[in-house]
Amino acid sequence: MSAADVAEVVARSRRFVRDVVIPAEPLTGTPLDPEARAALQRQARAAGVFAPHVPVELGGLGLPLTAWSPVFQEAGYSPIGPAVLNCMAPDEGNMLLLERLATPAQRESFLVPLAAGDVRSSFAMTEPHPGAGSDPAALATVAHRRGGRWVIDGEKRFISGAEEAAFAIVMARTPDLGERAATMFLVPMDAPGVEIGHAIRTLETAITGGHPHVRYHGVEVGEEAVLGTPGEAFRHAQLRLGPARLTHCMRWLGLARRAQDTALDRVRSRELFGHPLGELGLAQALLADSEIDLASSAALIDRAAASLVADPREGATASSLAKVHVSEAVGRVIDRAVQLCGGDGVTHELPLLGFLNEVRPFRVYDGSSETHRWAIARRAIARRRAEVEDGEAALDVAEGAR
Amino acid sequence: MSAADVAEVVARSRRFVRDVVIPAEPLTGTPLDPEARAALQRQARAAGVFAPHVPVELGGLGLPLTAWSPVFQEAGYSPIGPAVLNCMAPDEGNMLLLERLATPAQRESFLVPLAAGDVRSSFAMTEPHPGAGSDPAALATVAHRRGGRWVIDGEKRFISGAEEAAFAIVMARTPDLGERAATMFLVPMDAPGVEIGHAIRTLETAITGGHPHVRYHGVEVGEEAVLGTPGEAFRHAQLRLGPARLTHCMRWLGLARRAQDTALDRVRSRELFGHPLGELGLAQALLADSEIDLASSAALIDRAAASLVADPREGATASSLAKVHVSEAVGRVIDRAVQLCGGDGVTHELPLLGFLNEVRPFRVYDGSSETHRWAIARRAIARRRAEVEDGEAALDVAEGAR
Amino acid sequence: MSAADVAEVVARSRRFVRDVVIPAEPLTGTPLDPEARAALQRQARAAGVFAPHVPVELGGLGLPLTAWSPVFQEAGYSPIGPAVLNCMAPDEGNMLLLERLATPAQRESFLVPLAAGDVRSSFAMTEPHPGAGSDPAALATVAHRRGGRWVIDGEKRFISGAEEAAFAIVMARTPDLGERAATMFLVPMDAPGVEIGHAIRTLETAITGGHPHVRYHGVEVGEEAVLGTPGEAFRHAQLRLGPARLTHCMRWLGLARRAQDTALDRVRSRELFGHPLGELGLAQALLADSEIDLASSAALIDRAAASLVADPREGATASSLAKVHVSEAVGRVIDRAVQLCGGDGVTHELPLLGFLNEVRPFRVYDGSSETHRWAIARRAIARRRAEVEDGEAALDVAEGAR
Amino acid sequence: MSAADVAEVVARSRRFVRDVVIPAEPLTGTPLDPEARAALQRQARAAGVFAPHVPVELGGLGLPLTAWSPVFQEAGYSPIGPAVLNCMAPDEGNMLLLERLATPAQRESFLVPLAAGDVRSSFAMTEPHPGAGSDPAALATVAHRRGGRWVIDGEKRFISGAEEAAFAIVMARTPDLGERAATMFLVPMDAPGVEIGHAIRTLETAITGGHPHVRYHGVEVGEEAVLGTPGEAFRHAQLRLGPARLTHCMRWLGLARRAQDTALDRVRSRELFGHPLGELGLAQALLADSEIDLASSAALIDRAAASLVADPREGATASSLAKVHVSEAVGRVIDRAVQLCGGDGVTHELPLLGFLNEVRPFRVYDGSSETHRWAIARRAIARRRAEVEDGEAALDVAEGAR
Repeated sequence: MSAADVAEVVARSRRFVRDVVIPAEPLTGTPLDPEARAALQRQARAAGVFAPHVPVELGGLGLPLTAWSPVFQEAGYSPIGPAVLNCMAPDEGNMLLLERLATPAQRESFLVPLAAGDVRSSFAMTEPHPGAGSDPAALATVAHRRGGRWVIDGEKRFISGAEEAAFAIVMARTPDLGERAATMFLVPMDAPGVEIGHAIRTLETAITGGHPHVRYHGVEVGEEAVLGTPGEAFRHAQLRLGPARLTHCMRWLGLARRAQDTALDRVRSRELFGHPLGELGLAQALLADSEIDLASSAALIDRAAASLVADPREGATASSLAKVHVSEAVGRVIDRAVQLCGGDGVTHELPLLGFLNEVRPFRVYDGSSETHRWAIARRAIARRRAEVEDGEAALDVAEGAR
Repeated sequence: MSAADVAEVVARSRRFVRDVVIPAEPLTGTPLDPEARAALQRQARAAGVFAPHVPVELGGLGLPLTAWSPVFQEAGYSPIGPAVLNCMAPDEGNMLLLERLATPAQRESFLVPLAAGDVRSSFAMTEPHPGAGSDPAALATVAHRRGGRWVIDGEKRFISGAEEAAFAIVMARTPDLGERAATMFLVPMDAPGVEIGHAIRTLETAITGGHPHVRYHGVEVGEEAVLGTPGEAFRHAQLRLGPARLTHCMRWLGLARRAQDTALDRVRSRELFGHPLGELGLAQALLADSEIDLASSAALIDRAAASLVADPREGATASSLAKVHVSEAVGRVIDRAVQLCGGDGVTHELPLLGFLNEVRPFRVYDGSSETHRWAIARRAIARRRAEVEDGEAALDVAEGAR
Repeated sequence: MSAADVAEVVARSRRFVRDVVIPAEPLTGTPLDPEARAALQRQARAAGVFAPHVPVELGGLGLPLTAWSPVFQEAGYSPIGPAVLNCMAPDEGNMLLLERLATPAQRESFLVPLAAGDVRSSFAMTEPHPGAGSDPAALATVAHRRGGRWVIDGEKRFISGAEEAAFAIVMARTPDLGERAATMFLVPMDAPGVEIGHAIRTLETAITGGHPHVRYHGVEVGEEAVLGTPGEAFRHAQLRLGPARLTHCMRWLGLARRAQDTALDRVRSRELFGHPLGELGLAQALLADSEIDLASSAALIDRAAASLVADPREGATASSLAKVHVSEAVGRVIDRAVQLCGGDGVTHELPLLGFLNEVRPFRVYDGSSETHRWAIARRAIARRRAEVEDGEAALDVAEGAR
Repeated sequence: MSAADVAEVVARSRRFVRDVVIPAEPLTGTPLDPEARAALQRQARAAGVFAPHVPVELGGLGLPLTAWSPVFQEAGYSPIGPAVLNCMAPDEGNMLLLERLATPAQRESFLVPLAAGDVRSSFAMTEPHPGAGSDPAALATVAHRRGGRWVIDGEKRFISGAEEAAFAIVMARTPDLGERAATMFLVPMDAPGVEIGHAIRTLETAITGGHPHVRYHGVEVGEEAVLGTPGEAFRHAQLRLGPARLTHCMRWLGLARRAQDTALDRVRSRELFGHPLGELGLAQALLADSEIDLASSAALIDRAAASLVADPREGATASSLAKVHVSEAVGRVIDRAVQLCGGDGVTHELPLLGFLNEVRPFRVYDGSSETHRWAIARRAIARRRAEVEDGEAALDVAEGAR
């Protein structure tokens, strides 16, 4: 796809989001209801902006990963934009995973309707405390083989979208396949034994379908429910994690740009001390810092996207670093916009405080800033250790010791 | 030049700087003396790493602007590296300007020896307070036409490198050519009437040749001394400013990477509370923040370099934004390294405190952070104003007003 | 009142808030309803912790301003604590004003029931954009004398508590008393012509009674409705502003301490990478920064309270400075607690995200951080100018100029 | 001593430092030479401002600890002020220790001449890596009893002032007194076997006498050289540490105030874009942030000083917290002043860059910011654990778990 083609998709998405989606936004704090979503998705399809990341044969626009950022930013300019364009989490990450791993039959049953926006999905990995991070052995949800079928038992937590989902990709330990083996299963939400539990209330509304607990009470599925290679759930999950956190960055960067544009509109129209707000240095400092945050975020996303394509391992590092920076930067940008809009900013007269609540969880989701910083530091230390072991002179030798 | 060719230059420069240049560094706080510089430059030429930005026909490596960053970073890994590779300010920016503007004769007399490292140069624009920023009318140095020659009078300030320079590019108002006209002149430092004045002491040592005042007492030059189009000095200066501040970013980013590598070496070898320092979270937080600063700096430089090539006007904006971020980020990175190296960091046992003094002025040079922030905010406001005038809906309309 | 007496009030308030108030807190995002408030206020009175700032003869505890901080912090440890102890804005500031300015009759009609918690009140100063800040001439609400009575016309905005208030202190321009004269009036909310308008939705719940627009359509009051000296509304308002913003600091500092205690509880009980979270340096860094924010906030509040008592003018400066620091610090402390509590922090599983929304507006209320910074800088410049005019040597003389 | 008496000492010190000391300052980067110091000390004594912290009977002004801050700030307004007023580290902390621990004979021999400014002193605790922090067992310098005398062997590092000192207080392990026992010895610098080793170069100049290594080769001293109780060196050292880091805060806060005053002078006199710099919001933001840093620093110092007097254990915590905040705040204040003074700020035209180098090491000296943050977090966790064990309800219980 040529740069001009991408630019055209960006322009179309931009127009659609601004002309159609923003006027249809629900009041701040209210999620988009499913019918309104379906109607807007039909309009998006008609406008040629639906499912930008999905292959053309599945009804999408077929953009390569390196071209997603500007389009997802345009979608994210409205909190409901990504849902309307069908590129919202967790569905978008699930489509990626299905595309890579699904059998033809799974593709037909799960990916086709998901890509079309006909159904929604969940990714059931997180568990209640002490929970399972990246350690397979800590996974408490277990699937046992019983007479050619799998029986799943366990509890998941914070399963985004589960209340509206048709199915979930469930991570479960499969001790029959080895002590540390875990497997992904495609499990319909209406399968017997699936129970949606305690609904976790949040202030964020962009991911519809709630974030409830989901319990699996002896849920039976056949071998055809296994997604990818049995026992390889954690390796497969990596395929999803790097891009998924990066698309979060893209979408929320779009929302931060909306906040900055709102602030820019405000500083032109309001006066303080007899000057347009935008001519006051204290306002300019906030605006400039936000421009820098927006530009550095975009640049780090591009760098990570290119890296994910070139070398998935390097890409994971780059997307981790981008995630920390972008998740913090978008919060700062929106916070400054709140401040610049004064009284209207801190109430629901403008949607900015709502935006602030939308993005705040991203500093915790998909690995907290602290966990990523820990990993970033460790990788830096390992990188440098390898250089020194390879012959580079250690640099911390004090003059006094020379 | 292919990506592989660039990678090879990077690798060569890296090896040369680490194996040859770093061992030759003078004690912290001491500038490199001219003979040592000349000897190292000969070695650089022999190693095929001399003048990476200079066209091949002038003896350089002929790298395009978009490939400078990784090479200049390797050079900047040592404070004296850029001087040794002949890509240090102000010479490097002057070469760029001469290449674009010089007549064949000027090229021969000024650019050829400069590119070869045989002479050094200055750029004489800044003046004593109230000084001339970007306002031609404020330029106090004046050149009058007298019988087919130009007579220059005035005082310049903070003329980096002047004490070692063979010539300077002097900006002077030329009222004979119009009220706001200014012209660039190539003026030998030994021309009658050129006086090097008050030497401004600095803590920084990478730009050798001092930063003195320079006075022009009726200095006479001919028409052949005019660089570029008469009366167009300020337009020409723009050619230099955008790339020049970006190459500063590249070089000092290299020094920041050196500081980070020093800290990484230190945290592997030292223990605190019975753990290697690098396993302590408080150290990891500092290291990770520096990794983010380094990566975002590199990404913004690349973005600005591509932009400068594609569209000089956009490029000026992008390099301004990169300059603010990088000049502040490199200071933070080195400061964190100082902290991680403890007692050795805050003394001359390690060169880190020296590095901190090297980079501190960059937040003021080439436009202070505050001046750039002011400009960045104004451009953002103008960009958004144009969008709204073009039909975008203003976003700051309070719900109460709908 | 001795230090020991104050310490006893602090201890009592602490026990009452923790044992009685916190268990009665409504769900995050829900305001306290008036009956529950009344019941809790009765308990507070019985426990001897009601109205700590109110003189004993009015049923309060009679604490001097310099002793308010620790008690208000204990009250603010719960978002509903200040309402229960009847020391919440805007009532608390109105009590202060009435105590200083009310006639015996006004005292009986307005202050006595307000101090007793039998009624609530509003302070009607803010107006819709362009609004009236500190410039009397910009006040659009006007009161005209008509036959020995005052007739008030105008619109107010963001009138906190108005929906539950029995009366408001209304600032109106009174041109009959001079061009820049403004006067305070005590106006019952049920007076003919008072209309509660557009309700401004907020995420914050601690100030109950909404923040609506209030319109005055020819509202008639007698001379006995004038509070304080006619024409002196702006001078009188200063009496309220300094302490009122400082008591906001005290209350919200208490909430920030609650957030920090929540985080401290969490880091003891949760593990990450096999260590209690509290032993991980990245968590320790967040906790330590919050301790510093809490301690510096408390210290600046004490300094400002002492200053307000000693010299109201100095006190205004000190409370302005404290307001900027504390309003920003409490946001940082709660934000770090959110981060330390991970998934629970960013949902309503814990009330922390609610706390974040409670305190965010304080950076805008009572003068935005930017407006205060502007004022702080101007006062610093003026202070230094006076010193130099008094004979101090100017310090910015460059060596080169000596 | 009454508040008025203290105010008078402050005023006198202020006048003396500004009228006498500042004009005598050496060029930036150059330490004060001993003769000039002696002459200025004589003037200080004549002006009644010498040794403010020293008891009257020893020739000082007899100020209590809670009154030191404003006076030490005035002294620190010049980098050489504390040396001139004889309240500079390490002498000032040594005087405190001697006053508490010295025998009458030690008092006469060591404290009297030190308080009089006739000699200087060192505190020899720090050792080369891995060094001895607060762990007695790690102390490598050892003193053995041999026939009624002590023989000291070992190496110390970073012994501030040693090159000009008459004696040092040496911490040595004394295994004869117990496995973890350490003892303080008063050791003349000219005792046989004392060798001043490798001089550590620094950029900071306020502490004269260098920071060299000092080696002890079988240095013999008698029992009369023992300072305080044998074996109690680490407990005694605590007496010094809390106040000593707090007086560093006081002195460097004074220097930061000088930087801020310099910036305030500059913004009144310089123009940018046709406005005095001080009317530009970007400058105002910097100035206001510095005012807040200065005020919060002063408030935390006062809080810690009061705490040290009331309860040494609480005081240690409070001085640790103050140290982190003040050491970082003074750096920020001076850095902003550098920025506001532009070209003059980043060169030696003004002394600001020198000031920046003076204060930078303080974030490492006396326990690095990271070490203090670690300790602050641990104490906060312990404080909260005790509260919960005492019956407070844990606050981190998720709603879902209720």
